[in-house]
Amino acid sequence: MSSIVFEPLGRRFPITDGTTIAELARNAGVSLLSSCGSQGTCRKCRVRIVSGTVSPLTTEESEKLSEEDINRGYRLACLTRAYDDVKVQIAAESLISSQRLQVAGSGKTAVLNPLVQKYSISLPPPTMLDQKSDQRAVLEYLDREYGLKDIYIDLPAQRQLPDILRASEWQAGIVLRGREIIMAGQIGDRLLGLAVDLGTTKIAAYLADLQTGEVLAANASVNRQMAYGDDLMSRLDYAMGKEAETLRQSAADDINRLVAELCAETDLACDRIAEAVVVGNPAMHHLFLGLPVRQLALAPYIPAVSNAVDIKARDIGLTIAPGAYVHLLPNIAGFVGADHVAVLLATGIHDTEKTVIGIDIGTNTEITLAAHGRLLSTSCASGPAFEGAHIKDGMRAEGGAVEKVKITGSSVEIRTINNKPPVGICGSGILDAVAQLRKASVIDRTGKMLAHPQIRAAKNGQEFVLVSGENSGSGNDITITEPDISEILLAKAAIAAALNILLEEAKLPWDEVEEIIIAGAFGSYIDVVSAIEIGMFSPLPMERFSQVGNAAGTGAKLALLSKEQRDLASAIADKVNYVEMTNHPQYLRKFSRAIRLPA
Amino acid sequence: MSSIVFEPLGRRFPITDGTTIAELARNAGVSLLSSCGSQGTCRKCRVRIVSGTVSPLTTEESEKLSEEDINRGYRLACLTRAYDDVKVQIAAESLISSQRLQVAGSGKTAVLNPLVQKYSISLPPPTMLDQKSDQRAVLEYLDREYGLKDIYIDLPAQRQLPDILRASEWQAGIVLRGREIIMAGQIGDRLLGLAVDLGTTKIAAYLADLQTGEVLAANASVNRQMAYGDDLMSRLDYAMGKEAETLRQSAADDINRLVAELCAETDLACDRIAEAVVVGNPAMHHLFLGLPVRQLALAPYIPAVSNAVDIKARDIGLTIAPGAYVHLLPNIAGFVGADHVAVLLATGIHDTEKTVIGIDIGTNTEITLAAHGRLLSTSCASGPAFEGAHIKDGMRAEGGAVEKVKITGSSVEIRTINNKPPVGICGSGILDAVAQLRKASVIDRTGKMLAHPQIRAAKNGQEFVLVSGENSGSGNDITITEPDISEILLAKAAIAAALNILLEEAKLPWDEVEEIIIAGAFGSYIDVVSAIEIGMFSPLPMERFSQVGNAAGTGAKLALLSKEQRDLASAIADKVNYVEMTNHPQYLRKFSRAIRLPA
Repeated sequence: MSSIVFEPLGRRFPITDGTTIAELARNAGVSLLSSCGSQGTCRKCRVRIVSGTVSPLTTEESEKLSEEDINRGYRLACLTRAYDDVKVQIAAESLISSQRLQVAGSGKTAVLNPLVQKYSISLPPPTMLDQKSDQRAVLEYLDREYGLKDIYIDLPAQRQLPDILRASEWQAGIVLRGREIIMAGQIGDRLLGLAVDLGTTKIAAYLADLQTGEVLAANASVNRQMAYGDDLMSRLDYAMGKEAETLRQSAADDINRLVAELCAETDLACDRIAEAVVVGNPAMHHLFLGLPVRQLALAPYIPAVSNAVDIKARDIGLTIAPGAYVHLLPNIAGFVGADHVAVLLATGIHDTEKTVIGIDIGTNTEITLAAHGRLLSTSCASGPAFEGAHIKDGMRAEGGAVEKVKITGSSVEIRTINNKPPVGICGSGILDAVAQLRKASVIDRTGKMLAHPQIRAAKNGQEFVLVSGENSGSGNDITITEPDISEILLAKAAIAAALNILLEEAKLPWDEVEEIIIAGAFGSYIDVVSAIEIGMFSPLPMERFSQVGNAAGTGAKLALLSKEQRDLASAIADKVNYVEMTNHPQYLRKFSRAIRLPA
Repeated sequence: MSSIVFEPLGRRFPITDGTTIAELARNAGVSLLSSCGSQGTCRKCRVRIVSGTVSPLTTEESEKLSEEDINRGYRLACLTRAYDDVKVQIAAESLISSQRLQVAGSGKTAVLNPLVQKYSISLPPPTMLDQKSDQRAVLEYLDREYGLKDIYIDLPAQRQLPDILRASEWQAGIVLRGREIIMAGQIGDRLLGLAVDLGTTKIAAYLADLQTGEVLAANASVNRQMAYGDDLMSRLDYAMGKEAETLRQSAADDINRLVAELCAETDLACDRIAEAVVVGNPAMHHLFLGLPVRQLALAPYIPAVSNAVDIKARDIGLTIAPGAYVHLLPNIAGFVGADHVAVLLATGIHDTEKTVIGIDIGTNTEITLAAHGRLLSTSCASGPAFEGAHIKDGMRAEGGAVEKVKITGSSVEIRTINNKPPVGICGSGILDAVAQLRKASVIDRTGKMLAHPQIRAAKNGQEFVLVSGENSGSGNDITITEPDISEILLAKAAIAAALNILLEEAKLPWDEVEEIIIAGAFGSYIDVVSAIEIGMFSPLPMERFSQVGNAAGTGAKLALLSKEQRDLASAIADKVNYVEMTNHPQYLRKFSRAIRLPA
């Protein structure tokens, strides 16, 4: 039977001859971009035919593809039919996973000093008079030439060494982590590292050269655990059944896919990745490690593990070097995890003398207040509304999502991502909309709709027509419903209440906060003015706010590239005082007060 | 579809209703004993029906089985037909693997001090005011109560802890190995260890209680790698192709089967085995670890690894506790491996002041000469003839094998194992036969047959009829051929030449050897007089010889039960001077001289 292989994913599937590559991709679950519905007009689904027989180039393709593309073997997947065994390379920009998902972070850097180091060795060949084992020859060389003693060789490296030495005239590049040889290769092989921000909704991965500190490539994808619940609690519920292993495997698979893409993009081998750092909130951390989560999900919310973890990649099924370690930064407590430690590391909040709030807004929102030399941290369940979930016309921040709203009298202006025809509203758009609706007195302080030409009755209460069907990309009206507004009010109230309690714990009034650092993908897109107008933040001067993007990813990269930063992360986690919200005597009162919109 | 499960192997197979359990076992590769050809007369194939529907008890069974057996559900597998889903328990004595394969060894013991130790912990339950992780609670307890600092918890133990603590009122028994917690369980759980002698032909395994030092059960089976070559070199050849992983898996599977049987026999759980020690020759050692063997098989015969190895059971697929370590004793060089180190450990040859030879005769024979404070070791390829292979009517040492031969004039007396009707000749029998044939002048010094009523022409040269068909268990004549004698002469010459060279290296005449310790299953059954008569050993006084059985297994047990013995093993391996035979200037000359029988 004929088959198709999709590179860089490396997945093989049986085919029926004559089927289009786009259809084969869909059947195989490979998410190719397309905005024309496979009509051959958008050229988003470009793929390169590596080998095999396909249908001849069509006129449409000759028009859409550049001459250079055609010469390099590029075709449109929607117009190209496969016969026999076909191998195609999917252009990075044609994969859904490389859509607009933020991977850049704030710019803090550290002195390059990774935990893994490469050493060159050059041995005399053994003879019948010198029959010592390869192991002993390597260990003696390291002692003699580098003064390295008590070295242990991990089994995968030990399996590599005999053949490498004999194929390379008794020279090799060996990679040490502490006193352990974790891999062996050629002297000139690059030494790679991987940093991963394992978010509830999305996963960002960075491939770095550990000898130069350079980030070679970055990529992100949706966390496919979303299929098992889009908020933390429903996912933990799922894992408490017999499905913990399914969720663990899903996270490993997602990271492996990102690794394959990063390596294909840079033409490097995955098994040269000698170290990985993974950060995530405690739930993601536990699910990734296959740790039980029942005790984490139920009061008193106890993590199985809080200290930093070092584990072999092979023990959790990551397809990097089998001898590589995966390092997870420490968790703080309850729902404040390694990802927040990474944010503190990246933003430097932990050693400021100023009064600073660091906040990472997501499905779960983590907050740290640095004041008077103390670090107070907490978390609150802000729900997936800011990710576009649980909102009638909500969507993720991708092309066609309304991201900006302005209402003046009866006029409604919107802006969409990439200026595409609007098809839904993303988190920053809905936050904006609520602020604007309130500012224009279209809704009252409880979110109830009052009077406006765009208001109409809906299934549950009323709704505001933001974009009518004739102006939308889908032909359907895009509306904001009263339940949508309630979702946003619940989310912002959770955050506002948590902020207020942290300040009260530190005995600080709002206006003494000198800086508010907003981290996370959502946080970097929101309009801070709107966030203030709906009462998420107190109305401080705008210059006190900064939006730093994926600081968790940046923190992970720092810990990957620097042993000192990694040690610092543990020191930070130890220093933090955790404030539990769920049973805080003031939380419910603060929350119910914060749920109304400001007067 | 109906199925059958064979306990303690735990293997499930689909069945056709109405098939006998004996036939199902054969189809499934489960080796049930039978000496009557499944006629219902030998009662060897006793199995206990645990559940499911089987044919009614037959008259034959009522006669053969005791009333107690019948009441306990025992049946004869050859007469019992299975219907629906049947589970049967195979009696230990009915499995081929529990036949006469020696597992006992010499009696050296050590002070009990295993590397793994169990600690009881008892924690206060966490509360909303004390939300520290389970990990931190355990580590703080160990520090406070036992003064244990810098402890690391391996992931499998970390996965177990939360549920164990919550199910056992916050008490647990945790197992430390050095500074690592490798497993967690109930306080009362037994702490088990496994010692394995991974031989070229057979595998012996011992289950021990690490808290008492008691060996709870012992078992042995054929090494199923035999299917890929019965001598080391053909197996290494096989592994140099792409089949190394097949051989590795075969060894792991064999050990796992033995573990399952040992645990079923003692009603203990495999995942309570917290430590294993494995010894084998360098080829077995490398195949077991999945190390490349090309450089070991070809001159200058370099092992990948010579030092002792500690590796996680999960990394090589052993189904003991996933956090358990498997320890392999050090290899000495070339083909003198961890199994011979274990022999030295068990026999104490390493620190004797006497002049002692230790010899482990097998497919490969390892020899150490202790003299003047030095240890000289070597190995030689003695071939599988002593295991009954490459001998026309050869067989392994099981019931019905001729193990003793006496020829006086025209009379030939034999003795078989368990006094069963003779069906073949095992190693000690053929060695005896050659000695007796020579003594009775039936053969000349080159092994050529002269004159005797039992001699007749055969396919290649002549053969000596040891047992005629009417007296044999199979109905066939059992004969010794001239090629059989050649095989034995080649094997004994290899051993004699190696012994002579070692003595020459130490500048010692034979009669200064004060003790010859013969280890190994074969070595413990041979008649030393016969071995001297064929010229394998020099004619020293009989009191200087001792036969100690499976000393390699005993050494493995010592290393399992005592950290000090394990350290000693490494010291022994370092102390040994290896003498390579393959390129020794004297070897071929000594070998060709030793090939003739003594005058």
